[in-house]
Amino acid sequence: MESLKTLFDPKSIAVIGASNTQGSVGYSLMKNLVGSGFNGVVYPVNPNKKNVLGIHCYKSIQELPEEVDLAIIAIPAFIVPTVLKECVKAKAKSAIIISSGFGETGKKGQKLEQEISKIIKGTGIRVLGPNCLGYIRPDKKINASFATRNALPGKLALISQSGALCSSILDWALKQKVGFKYFISVGAMQDINFADLIEFIEQDEDVESIAIYMETIKDSKRFMDAAIRFSKSKPIIVAKSGRFEESAKAAISHTGSMAGNDAVFDAAFRRAGIVRVEDVQDLLGCAKALASQPLPKGNRLAIITNAGGPGVMATDAIIKNGCKLASLSNEAMAKLDKVLPKHWSRNNPIDVLGDAPPERYEDALNIVLKEKNVDGVIVILSPQAITKPAEVAKIVAKKAGKSKKTVLGCWMGESFVEPAREVLRKRGLPSYRTPEKAVRVFRYMDSYRKNIANLYEKPKEIKVKTKPNRKKIRAIFEKNLARKNTVLDEVDSKEILEEYGIPVNKTVFAKNVKEATKQAKALGFPVALKVVSDEITHKTDANAIALNIASEKAILKAFKQIISNARKTNPKAKIRGVSVQKMVAGHLELILGAKKDSVFGPVILFGMGGVATELFQDKSIGLPPLNQTLAKNIIRRTKVYRLLAGYRKKFKIDLLELEQILISFSQFVLDFPEIKEIDLNPIMVSKGKLFAVDARIVLSSKKKKN
Amino acid sequence: MESLKTLFDPKSIAVIGASNTQGSVGYSLMKNLVGSGFNGVVYPVNPNKKNVLGIHCYKSIQELPEEVDLAIIAIPAFIVPTVLKECVKAKAKSAIIISSGFGETGKKGQKLEQEISKIIKGTGIRVLGPNCLGYIRPDKKINASFATRNALPGKLALISQSGALCSSILDWALKQKVGFKYFISVGAMQDINFADLIEFIEQDEDVESIAIYMETIKDSKRFMDAAIRFSKSKPIIVAKSGRFEESAKAAISHTGSMAGNDAVFDAAFRRAGIVRVEDVQDLLGCAKALASQPLPKGNRLAIITNAGGPGVMATDAIIKNGCKLASLSNEAMAKLDKVLPKHWSRNNPIDVLGDAPPERYEDALNIVLKEKNVDGVIVILSPQAITKPAEVAKIVAKKAGKSKKTVLGCWMGESFVEPAREVLRKRGLPSYRTPEKAVRVFRYMDSYRKNIANLYEKPKEIKVKTKPNRKKIRAIFEKNLARKNTVLDEVDSKEILEEYGIPVNKTVFAKNVKEATKQAKALGFPVALKVVSDEITHKTDANAIALNIASEKAILKAFKQIISNARKTNPKAKIRGVSVQKMVAGHLELILGAKKDSVFGPVILFGMGGVATELFQDKSIGLPPLNQTLAKNIIRRTKVYRLLAGYRKKFKIDLLELEQILISFSQFVLDFPEIKEIDLNPIMVSKGKLFAVDARIVLSSKKKKN
Repeated sequence: MESLKTLFDPKSIAVIGASNTQGSVGYSLMKNLVGSGFNGVVYPVNPNKKNVLGIHCYKSIQELPEEVDLAIIAIPAFIVPTVLKECVKAKAKSAIIISSGFGETGKKGQKLEQEISKIIKGTGIRVLGPNCLGYIRPDKKINASFATRNALPGKLALISQSGALCSSILDWALKQKVGFKYFISVGAMQDINFADLIEFIEQDEDVESIAIYMETIKDSKRFMDAAIRFSKSKPIIVAKSGRFEESAKAAISHTGSMAGNDAVFDAAFRRAGIVRVEDVQDLLGCAKALASQPLPKGNRLAIITNAGGPGVMATDAIIKNGCKLASLSNEAMAKLDKVLPKHWSRNNPIDVLGDAPPERYEDALNIVLKEKNVDGVIVILSPQAITKPAEVAKIVAKKAGKSKKTVLGCWMGESFVEPAREVLRKRGLPSYRTPEKAVRVFRYMDSYRKNIANLYEKPKEIKVKTKPNRKKIRAIFEKNLARKNTVLDEVDSKEILEEYGIPVNKTVFAKNVKEATKQAKALGFPVALKVVSDEITHKTDANAIALNIASEKAILKAFKQIISNARKTNPKAKIRGVSVQKMVAGHLELILGAKKDSVFGPVILFGMGGVATELFQDKSIGLPPLNQTLAKNIIRRTKVYRLLAGYRKKFKIDLLELEQILISFSQFVLDFPEIKEIDLNPIMVSKGKLFAVDARIVLSSKKKKN
Repeated sequence: MESLKTLFDPKSIAVIGASNTQGSVGYSLMKNLVGSGFNGVVYPVNPNKKNVLGIHCYKSIQELPEEVDLAIIAIPAFIVPTVLKECVKAKAKSAIIISSGFGETGKKGQKLEQEISKIIKGTGIRVLGPNCLGYIRPDKKINASFATRNALPGKLALISQSGALCSSILDWALKQKVGFKYFISVGAMQDINFADLIEFIEQDEDVESIAIYMETIKDSKRFMDAAIRFSKSKPIIVAKSGRFEESAKAAISHTGSMAGNDAVFDAAFRRAGIVRVEDVQDLLGCAKALASQPLPKGNRLAIITNAGGPGVMATDAIIKNGCKLASLSNEAMAKLDKVLPKHWSRNNPIDVLGDAPPERYEDALNIVLKEKNVDGVIVILSPQAITKPAEVAKIVAKKAGKSKKTVLGCWMGESFVEPAREVLRKRGLPSYRTPEKAVRVFRYMDSYRKNIANLYEKPKEIKVKTKPNRKKIRAIFEKNLARKNTVLDEVDSKEILEEYGIPVNKTVFAKNVKEATKQAKALGFPVALKVVSDEITHKTDANAIALNIASEKAILKAFKQIISNARKTNPKAKIRGVSVQKMVAGHLELILGAKKDSVFGPVILFGMGGVATELFQDKSIGLPPLNQTLAKNIIRRTKVYRLLAGYRKKFKIDLLELEQILISFSQFVLDFPEIKEIDLNPIMVSKGKLFAVDARIVLSSKKKKN
């Protein structure tokens, strides 16, 4: 942490690869650092130059008159390790590797990365990059980047994983008058990653929010911890791209295969209280609003507009974004009637009509800001014959500044309203080009409010019914692994789940038809028979399942049939016997599963089963451990929740029981890291009760110790 | 039509309500018309003025020295009828009523509207408005509006239903260098509506496309006819708001109640080949692209970018929009390897790297434009240290101009890339601020291509199996209406549907238990019994249904039970007997329905039934009449289509049969306009066959003659 402080507040900087060649990175870095107000020393380092920008140039970092706080390395990748070693020797406290040509280029580059890791290990030096733009810190007048644009000072910390995008962001930010406390290009995150930066920024009280452009993360656990802690007091906003990448297509499990990595990111962001925005422009739009406007206390929006059309557009956006059009109280209506012309819309959106002078906007805003039923106001202006865009802007910004409610602006047009937008920017009222954008930003703000509420929500105490016998479970694992079987059969799987209080339909093993008959009689008809064989894990495909067996006689026939089918499918399979289980009647199927995500580790998936799983993708993802609040939220995000909550009486269940199942399931997944995946598919809803009627636990082939 | 020609190409214009008061509508109109190049005479009319803008002012239109082509009326609403009468007397050939204060303000205003209709009826005068901005026609230098902005000349015809939005659109258009042949504010469409304007514009060969901002339409039949005809040769682009209006919530029918009006608009637009865009800004963005770029021949996009991040963002957008990331041929890869640096992305998106000079963009674009697998290219530029945005713009615009493939640009940033964007605008290469927007515009273009293909697709001949006995059907209607029953029972409904060859499970009427038993034996067990009573139309709610009756004995019990339940529900109900029908086994339910939409008339709805209907809203809407192509498209837009097409073998059906059912159903709906709504819910999929197992035809209470 001390090193990070030095990195972002250095007194001395060495620029290794400094250059006089205009357009080169080494030149841009020097140009950005020298003569721009930085209160420290910049040392150009380049063995081939005598001077750079008229400053004495050193042959190597070891020649410098002092141990520098920061070494910025902008030289070809292949000599970076050599130079980095010199930096370590010269006791540089931190470094930025600007150079590209590492992991992204293939094996050679990966090897270079490994060298770098070795060099810095244990030295205490912290490294930003490689393959980054550097960083800008306007308050200290440090521009340690080769960006073509500078940043305004402000209270936003921006972290971008795409260096190439930084200039565009800076350009947008300049126009929007968005200022930064830190503007950081993280590059390949060989050493310093998002978690480090969030932890560092957390200690800076000046920062009001963090905005991140992200493509992926490293060290998800630390990221989550840091993000959760930060989000509890200040917002983190993330634009993550790569929603549909080939990588995201990789399957999570048979059930999870439909989720895709991006859905896991979504779940992780929600869990961490992070606000996910749709694109990079929204990143700034949202940061701007969070920085200058109070958080809304709910999702009820009022619209004040001088044009009907945009009012309709805003209403569309409000519903589409899941917000609410505030309904005005009778008192507010009466007040509005007094100050507005006769033909005003007499409803929300409040159409103050095309000839609205600034005072009319002011009057309407005054009334609406006092309304209990209103959590936020979007003020829309479309320039008409006698509209005074800038005058309206002044009045609206003034009123908004004094209110505890969220106010956003939308001045529609170009040159005709640009001066007014400039007024809004100067006075800190966020404004957007279209009603849709304004509403979307309001939704982001509201979702941050909800996120915090979730982070602070105290879950209901849920009594865990059973105390799982972990030794017994491990013994079952050992037994299977001893015979090199990693896919546990239904009998073993259900026995284990029962230990965690997860309801299953009674299922027993029978090694021959005589035993099966006996078991069936004990369970009560009708029953199902399924083949048990380590070599046949896809029993349905093998036609090795018989359902709804209603009599002893039928068992005999069914047994013969499924054994014969199994043999046909895989003549070499060792058939151990059959499972016998009680049929469960039900018309609604749920699924519950777990799989290891390559980034986030174990992931829980819940949803509607049967046809709906694949057709409608009605599923929801969460990260363990789950408490009651988190389990509840997972369930509520599915559409099938409506049925379970009683929408059509016949599928109503005790939701607390389902929550408990999810909690126990997540505990089970965490208790045994050797679990690769689990599928409870389906869980049958039968007369208000739940039964996992099929279950499959898959172990990692390499046994791990807990 | 002649009057419309005069309206949009007048030689003489009277401005009634002309004024010297700056900011007033009468002043703005005069200011826009006089001295701006219009090659005709403008007469100010105002009884209270001697002159306006230094021009002699007339007391009334009747005083003018000639019969004018166009009278523009900008006076308070209540005297508009009087003045309009004078216009008619003075033989003005057309009029624009600028004034507001009509239908939108309530009953008084509606009365004024009716007066206007009476006045113009049969006179031949055509009227634009009321409550509009007027129109602009740059090629003739006519600005017959009070807009604060003028329009550039061009080939786009824009029609806006929101006058207040016009200035914003003009402002955007000026900045984007989008020019117009016509820029028309239609207002309340008392006389001239969208259909009139589309028909008029169709005759103008200069116009390349029509863009419409729409909230609703009048005279849907004429609109559809005009739009279909126009779309076959040139695109109509529509931004329609009001997606979730209270009005849209009005139910279409029990099934249709989930559709909402906006879905009907969607269906109508698709049917007419209209491209629907998401918002007003997209209207111009899309028009610009359609005007300057060739239509893509498919949906495969290549991305050329100097920044990885935006490439990922573009890829996300491509998948989200249902387009495809083009895969590059080996030849193209080899050529790109030759001209690009070693570490280029070696894939699409083609990352030409941050240091890309203009020539590298040129080389990559050259190769990609020759690729067979590529239908369009989006060129992205994020300004980096040595990027030359304007130089790249010049080269890309030049190459694009010579290609038959769609090329769109995305220069990301503000002031740093603005000069380059100006280059693109001047050279006619459409460019957008974000990759998302560029991809969305490409999708619009591609959807127009698909729309045209649909309009021209020759449907398969489908043999209609039966020749419906319409007399018989009408007799059934008469029988019901004679006893004042509008909700036909299942027996009648199914008998009628069978006439149109729609498969139903055999259902017969039985007036007592003896008859019921006899019928059941004839049909074969198991059967279902349902009460038949005009007063009990919700049989399930009344528990007046018994399913799966397997024996004669069970019939007796079931009969008693449902009659007793029906009596309990409604003691006054006249119970006519029961329906007896053969049970159909099946696990997949479909729905097919029809209802009258307030705008478009009869609407057909098809979708998945059961739980899915309400939970997943898996449904699709179409307008009758249907041919095989249209029926096919309706079915394919649902998710359940995957099942029907064989995705899980057990639900596979003969799709042609389903298409035939939809076609016959739509014919039935059109044959009998007295039908208010129909529900076939569910249609059961049973071993590859379809059976409507419940059906309900509802007639309008007022009998209409066919």
